[in-house]
Amino acid sequence: MSIRPLPAAIDSDALLRSLDGRFHDARERTRGYLRRDDFRPVVGLDMEAHRERVLQQARVLAESGHAGHGYPERYGGKSDVGGSVTGFEMLAYADLSLQVKAGVQWGLFGGAVLHLGTERHHERYLPAILSLELPGCFAMTETGHGSDVQAIGTTATYDEESQCFVLTTPDELSRKDYIGNAARDGRMAAVFAQLVTKGTSHGVHAFLVPIRDEQGQLCDGVDIEDCGHKAGLNGVDNGRITFTDVRVPVEALLNRYGDVAPDGTYTSPIENENKRFFTMLGTLVQGRISVSGGAGAAARAALALAVRYGGRRRQFRPPGAEEEVIVLDYLAHQRRLLPALAKSYALLFAQGEMVAALQDAIGRPADDHAQRELETRAAGIKAVTTWHATATIQACREACGGAGYLSENLLPQLKADSDVFTTFEGDNTVLMQLVAKGLLTRYRDHFGELDTLGTVRFVADQVVEAVIERTAARALVQRLVAAAPGRDEDADLYDRGYQLSLFEWREKHVVDGLARRLRRAGSGSADPFEAFNAAQDHLLLAARVHVDRVVLEAFVAAIDRCEEASSKALLERVCDLFVLSNLEDDRAWFLEHGRFTGRQAKAITKAVNELCKRLRPHAEVLVDAFGIPDECLQVPMLATPGVTPGSATGASAAAASATAASSSAAMP
Amino acid sequence: MSIRPLPAAIDSDALLRSLDGRFHDARERTRGYLRRDDFRPVVGLDMEAHRERVLQQARVLAESGHAGHGYPERYGGKSDVGGSVTGFEMLAYADLSLQVKAGVQWGLFGGAVLHLGTERHHERYLPAILSLELPGCFAMTETGHGSDVQAIGTTATYDEESQCFVLTTPDELSRKDYIGNAARDGRMAAVFAQLVTKGTSHGVHAFLVPIRDEQGQLCDGVDIEDCGHKAGLNGVDNGRITFTDVRVPVEALLNRYGDVAPDGTYTSPIENENKRFFTMLGTLVQGRISVSGGAGAAARAALALAVRYGGRRRQFRPPGAEEEVIVLDYLAHQRRLLPALAKSYALLFAQGEMVAALQDAIGRPADDHAQRELETRAAGIKAVTTWHATATIQACREACGGAGYLSENLLPQLKADSDVFTTFEGDNTVLMQLVAKGLLTRYRDHFGELDTLGTVRFVADQVVEAVIERTAARALVQRLVAAAPGRDEDADLYDRGYQLSLFEWREKHVVDGLARRLRRAGSGSADPFEAFNAAQDHLLLAARVHVDRVVLEAFVAAIDRCEEASSKALLERVCDLFVLSNLEDDRAWFLEHGRFTGRQAKAITKAVNELCKRLRPHAEVLVDAFGIPDECLQVPMLATPGVTPGSATGASAAAASATAASSSAAMP
Repeated sequence: MSIRPLPAAIDSDALLRSLDGRFHDARERTRGYLRRDDFRPVVGLDMEAHRERVLQQARVLAESGHAGHGYPERYGGKSDVGGSVTGFEMLAYADLSLQVKAGVQWGLFGGAVLHLGTERHHERYLPAILSLELPGCFAMTETGHGSDVQAIGTTATYDEESQCFVLTTPDELSRKDYIGNAARDGRMAAVFAQLVTKGTSHGVHAFLVPIRDEQGQLCDGVDIEDCGHKAGLNGVDNGRITFTDVRVPVEALLNRYGDVAPDGTYTSPIENENKRFFTMLGTLVQGRISVSGGAGAAARAALALAVRYGGRRRQFRPPGAEEEVIVLDYLAHQRRLLPALAKSYALLFAQGEMVAALQDAIGRPADDHAQRELETRAAGIKAVTTWHATATIQACREACGGAGYLSENLLPQLKADSDVFTTFEGDNTVLMQLVAKGLLTRYRDHFGELDTLGTVRFVADQVVEAVIERTAARALVQRLVAAAPGRDEDADLYDRGYQLSLFEWREKHVVDGLARRLRRAGSGSADPFEAFNAAQDHLLLAARVHVDRVVLEAFVAAIDRCEEASSKALLERVCDLFVLSNLEDDRAWFLEHGRFTGRQAKAITKAVNELCKRLRPHAEVLVDAFGIPDECLQVPMLATPGVTPGSATGASAAAASATAASSSAAMP
Repeated sequence: MSIRPLPAAIDSDALLRSLDGRFHDARERTRGYLRRDDFRPVVGLDMEAHRERVLQQARVLAESGHAGHGYPERYGGKSDVGGSVTGFEMLAYADLSLQVKAGVQWGLFGGAVLHLGTERHHERYLPAILSLELPGCFAMTETGHGSDVQAIGTTATYDEESQCFVLTTPDELSRKDYIGNAARDGRMAAVFAQLVTKGTSHGVHAFLVPIRDEQGQLCDGVDIEDCGHKAGLNGVDNGRITFTDVRVPVEALLNRYGDVAPDGTYTSPIENENKRFFTMLGTLVQGRISVSGGAGAAARAALALAVRYGGRRRQFRPPGAEEEVIVLDYLAHQRRLLPALAKSYALLFAQGEMVAALQDAIGRPADDHAQRELETRAAGIKAVTTWHATATIQACREACGGAGYLSENLLPQLKADSDVFTTFEGDNTVLMQLVAKGLLTRYRDHFGELDTLGTVRFVADQVVEAVIERTAARALVQRLVAAAPGRDEDADLYDRGYQLSLFEWREKHVVDGLARRLRRAGSGSADPFEAFNAAQDHLLLAARVHVDRVVLEAFVAAIDRCEEASSKALLERVCDLFVLSNLEDDRAWFLEHGRFTGRQAKAITKAVNELCKRLRPHAEVLVDAFGIPDECLQVPMLATPGVTPGSATGASAAAASATAASSSAAMP
């Protein structure tokens, strides 16, 4: 059991291309934008100035055609959804407020028109949405309902006489809340409301409702309150919208999944109301994929800053030594940053695979199973990536000490802005439960279609056994797993097949146990809520270990695709660190379930330490490969004269590290 | 093995008094202040307005005599250090910027004059410091040296001819940096600099240096740059100070631990330079104690907000049910908040014990061992509490979803402001290493006096065996441990003696193992830096489990002091949750070291879930007992009409919980 040695020099171009993957061109194009002065990060703006700056940046994106890239050609786009999502993700390097503002306009608002509307809406609105002539909102969340959107209170009641829908906010809990673009710039909103005709509700549908006229005056019956200052994202103008009998014509209904005839008759291609609702939501999966993309990018930017600073900053001179120790040479410092860096690699590959699946689904015949799998994956990767971003950016801030707390060094903004990602576009805890539910029902139904009771009964009715559905790397993973030693005693911690088999075994064991538990509960006399609630931590664990396995398979596939030897060798070790630090975090579970002995568990901790040491000389190469334009990360803490410049290449960093390692002193 | 039942009604006054402890009067006095309009939290101020507001609040504290409480009577104080530190901690409920601003003026700047100066400084400066006529700075940290303060670059060279010290900033890395009160308000600074006489350096000493005149103009040779916008604490004016041959008279030297005669002869009561430096730093221990106090208070405020919101917010209506489920009835939500709440209780008691030790040391004959123990404890509790605050406030923010992200609901400010606590007043990672060093050397020397090499040799020279030094609860803890069953198989997870013995065993095992490891390294040929660095994670673990044990003993002592039955019963269960969630987090270690079987480890997870369920009905009572004035926590998210008010008493909360528990649905 040993770590294979790393080449002295890494081909950093090849590494960057591996990370960029299939959407390399989109990334290069976006890098070009990000180098422009318009997109330079600025700090300390007040809220109004920040909002104005972000609006102007959005106009630049619109004018240059960048914004509409993912839309159909006939409306001015290029049908390049994958490239568009990838480019969007990178706006995080400029300003997460811009990313969110763009996401509201072209992802959510435009996406609702595109996916929930029909040709009449596309023809009429998409060109103006792409050009930003028509700034819009996505008005779904209400004060009282964020996670449970199906229970929103806003109503759209059809009035047969005037052939209009009447939109009403019945109470304060039914105010549209946290709505981006609402407080200042939006002129129209895609409003989600309970559609009522002839006294019958048909569930949630979306309506295009003008909220301001061209002079920016509020429309009749529309009240908007500014959400005011937020923890971050203050370049986005979030607001609360209240509707008092606002009338819109029947054409305002985005009618792809449900329509109302002039006489008030409701029709829909999907009979089941629940299924219809979740099919509608499912078409908006791109939004969730974009959030994980943005969170991943924010974490990478923070790591690039902290790793570079850690490679320059010195503290504590050992007795007799000439120089102080570079802080990244301390094990504790490596432990803070390098496993997070490895996980960032893993999540970047998983994200790329998901974006590719999104792109590939376009134009193909509808595949319910594949769509459900993608939605589940988007939910899981979004939750795991956004939590990773929050934890990583925090670690990076702390790793930079006081410098990390100054706005000029950009970490504060990254941290404050990305924080809300864990709870918007689906609260992570709720999303992870959706993932678990998908695993239990094997995507047999849309994950939203079964309620809790239904899920418990569904599971109870079957001899459910967890099935590991392979990701894109199916054949490769099977080959690696098959080649792994059968007995743990013979296992090499660095054997990829063994690692994969551990992740698989864990997933299968957790999901099987969960299914058994719910089956017992469902067939017994226990209250279904109690049964579900008591198993909630088990449910979250099942989702997490599933996502971990999917992410690892994406990493393995990416390594397989890499053809250049030095970068491939480096990726192999980064993957080892991702795997082993994951196993280390979870070693209690493996010990509890008799899969690890105490000795094996301790060996994993040692291996993580050893991998940190081996990868440390390449730390800057690893963050350079993210390809974040220098213009986005020019910060004073990396420019202080007298701070020893870090080495830019693996080789010289290794030399620097060797020097430091031969000196001493870790505490004052 | 079972949880003892809780009384239906809790005496909340008795609970509050238990938490207030010995400094109840100081807490009540401070609550009175905090109810005033001057101290009402405000949000969305720009930096300049925020700075001005905080300065005015500080003036109120000065005028009312609140600020000087901890100073000797002859200078206008009341010699009530404990009450002063306790009151200071509670300023976190108003504005952490105020707390830090006050801490700079009366804790650090005033503290340096009091503890490092002599009567001539006291007479001349303390009255003006207490009244805020002389706003000052504590200029220790430099751009290049934060953790390793002994290595600062600023020099104070004695010029025999003019009988002056000449202060010089030799390079940019030696700028004083992040200095509170420097950018705007400070008129004098306690400047730490290398004292040089007759060409010889005598190490770091402090000097009182005027930086602005009464009109606010910078003094000759003093340059100050504003640090600008920060992640938080923007009501504090941090700056960077550069000295160009600034002359101060010989009396400017704070000369308690070192003096210079007119002819330049240096004398000190402490011969060893290292020991002198750490003795000087040791007198400033109150600052570190105050930071853990503030961090603990910030975490409690966040918990009060999140628990109250979680007790009102509903989401997901089970099929057939009348109402949606209160989110705090979900296990996952309880798991986010209740173990953190239990740990907040534990840390509050540990803090109280530390403050009492600080107070009791006053006027007693100097006790080196006790002083070192207090410094070590302050370092450990500061690190653990500030990390706890960062994690807890984050969890609270997420638990409140979008509402938690709005500035009006106060969580963003608490989060952003308290974030820096993990790295200022000693970087936590560095502090935890100091704690471990204290354990290894049994406080035989000031923890700073031995360098790394010295520590390794010291350990190598001895048959070190970890000694569990008892905290204040010595006799009680021994009695409980002695009564615990000897064999794990017979053990009751809820037996306090058994819990204490597990914490003790862990500490002893980790510290012994660390000592053996370093002894091997020290007696072998290995490079001392390598040996130390490779053991760094072991070192941090040793410190953490030591602090955990000290904190638990403080909790046990506090329960013992509580005389009212219902609140005592509740505290017992909160202590169980603190212990068991700690053991759950650390169960991998117990499994690896053969102390837990898989079955035992799983039983701990079950017990944590069960405790969450039992404590949930009392969650609001538990946060009410923090005694945070309502005026400090009036936020819109708790006032939205239509949001079901949470129950204020344990009894009715239990009823509400029972209702919710009999309904169903945990996912959309």
